[in-house]
Amino acid sequence: MKQKLADYGTETLLGIHAFIPEKEPDQYLYGLLSDYPNRGGKGFRPGLCIASCKAFGGKLKEAKFSAVALEMLHNAFLIHDDVEDESFYRRKKPTMHEATSRAIAINVGDMFNALSLSPLWRNRDLLGEKLSQRIFLEIQHLITESAEGQALELGWRKDNRCDLTETDYLRMILKKTCWYTCIHPIRIGALIGSKGSVKPDDFNRLGYFMGAAFQIQDDVLNLVGEESAYGKEIGGDIMEGKRTLMLIHLLLHCSASERRFIKGFLKIPILDRNLAEAKTILELMHDYGSITYAKTTSKYLAGAALKEFYSHFSHLEESEDKAFLESIILYMINRDY
Amino acid sequence: MKQKLADYGTETLLGIHAFIPEKEPDQYLYGLLSDYPNRGGKGFRPGLCIASCKAFGGKLKEAKFSAVALEMLHNAFLIHDDVEDESFYRRKKPTMHEATSRAIAINVGDMFNALSLSPLWRNRDLLGEKLSQRIFLEIQHLITESAEGQALELGWRKDNRCDLTETDYLRMILKKTCWYTCIHPIRIGALIGSKGSVKPDDFNRLGYFMGAAFQIQDDVLNLVGEESAYGKEIGGDIMEGKRTLMLIHLLLHCSASERRFIKGFLKIPILDRNLAEAKTILELMHDYGSITYAKTTSKYLAGAALKEFYSHFSHLEESEDKAFLESIILYMINRDY
Repeated sequence: MKQKLADYGTETLLGIHAFIPEKEPDQYLYGLLSDYPNRGGKGFRPGLCIASCKAFGGKLKEAKFSAVALEMLHNAFLIHDDVEDESFYRRKKPTMHEATSRAIAINVGDMFNALSLSPLWRNRDLLGEKLSQRIFLEIQHLITESAEGQALELGWRKDNRCDLTETDYLRMILKKTCWYTCIHPIRIGALIGSKGSVKPDDFNRLGYFMGAAFQIQDDVLNLVGEESAYGKEIGGDIMEGKRTLMLIHLLLHCSASERRFIKGFLKIPILDRNLAEAKTILELMHDYGSITYAKTTSKYLAGAALKEFYSHFSHLEESEDKAFLESIILYMINRDY
Repeated sequence: MKQKLADYGTETLLGIHAFIPEKEPDQYLYGLLSDYPNRGGKGFRPGLCIASCKAFGGKLKEAKFSAVALEMLHNAFLIHDDVEDESFYRRKKPTMHEATSRAIAINVGDMFNALSLSPLWRNRDLLGEKLSQRIFLEIQHLITESAEGQALELGWRKDNRCDLTETDYLRMILKKTCWYTCIHPIRIGALIGSKGSVKPDDFNRLGYFMGAAFQIQDDVLNLVGEESAYGKEIGGDIMEGKRTLMLIHLLLHCSASERRFIKGFLKIPILDRNLAEAKTILELMHDYGSITYAKTTSKYLAGAALKEFYSHFSHLEESEDKAFLESIILYMINRDY
């Protein structure tokens, strides 16, 4: 599974480079565009898109431009997300705004967004007008949902919301993560592979369950993973006040005085927060079983994804790519932290 | 002239509202989208686009979606620009990031960018596939040039460049301002009005001269205008370290010790700069004739725009819209500060 993901990732990375013009201004714009992609992400989105295309009978090259657009948009999101979250590290290196300036990073993200239209444009020659237009609308919906999810999360932080429920959380990550990480990559891949004959809404539940499991596992790893293995500052999410499932679970189960303490911590501007207090919150998450709860929830979600996968993929011929998609889900179910 | 600009602006504003969905999340996303447009901009870009369309024989309604997209993008730029420049006021009110948070403002700008694709999409029904695709590419080029210009300006500030020439400046505003404010609005309008029969490159020099004159006058007004008339903090550009023609002229003509003083001022982070020192720099600009020089330059540029206008519009039938375009340029030549 990891090899296939890496192969599709490499293919996509080469594609991204081909869409980044070698021109001035280089130092504070074009030269920075390849920075995040070159740091080596998982390539999850292009992997899902390409595999879904191939599982439905398409070829890698038919999904390539769409995969490239998805990964370019992902990198644009990451750059803006890091500014918005005031994050210090991304994949073991300083975030773009830390290495340059906030202003420059915002502008680089804007350029990445604009450039991501180029591979979509190239889809016309590859897939014809009709299918390429459908994919274009998929992408516009993807961007819209992501911005809505981001707005929810940022609004919660701004208002220091400490009364959120699991339902709020799941709705937020549906918007912020699932659409762009799983639902649309699978939809787009299946549309291409089937030459437009699938009903893309059939994949929404699969992508939702998969994306939610993925996001929760990602958030758990931020708390308990090894810095060296994961490449993000440990507990960075707590320092940033991110409303994770663990934080929401903790707030729902801790004592009133503990809740006051957490609320006080979250009220302070990000950069003034105290690391020792963040560690106390992490300990509380352990004590109240919030991390175990999140791990379990993510595995249930991955299980639900597997059921959905069988519903919509089992009629397809066996193929390496179909097995690859299944193995991603199985990996999430069996994952050991 | 002002009435026509206002009429086209009102038409465009209604169009923008129609493309902003009334849905959740409202408080930190959709509700904020109409904030900047409702503050009442000049509507310069839609005005140019619609008038150029009509001067070439088209109808207002044919240019409407393009004008709306241009103004939506303009507002997206403004929101991100204000964050990047750390500006406090926009059209007499706190900037969006001051009123909400930096993170929320960045996200709202991203959403505005994404939504601006919607009116462009509607162009297909209105203008047909071929012309709407040409306009789409015009818009992508517009975004790209603007981001390049922005990167130049932000890079200059980051590196505290104090050795810039007028040529550097003009190249920067060609990219940052002229393409999106004048060149593309005129090109797009003429393409629509002529049903694709004009050569859009014919309008590049007109749009460049016009846009440069416009930008320089805008920058001069930032320094010498009345706060109440202009709605931006007076001298805000100096506080922000913006490389205006006046600052570049001053740096080229002042004494070595004055240059050291200015360079020292610009080296300090924006929010730590001293207003009294900014006022000293403003006085130096007056003393060295930098402001007079900029005013004169902008009028020369407007004169060059007029010549270009006659070259490419005089063969057209007389019309209110042709006269409107001419009067905008004449206004810039005769403008009294």
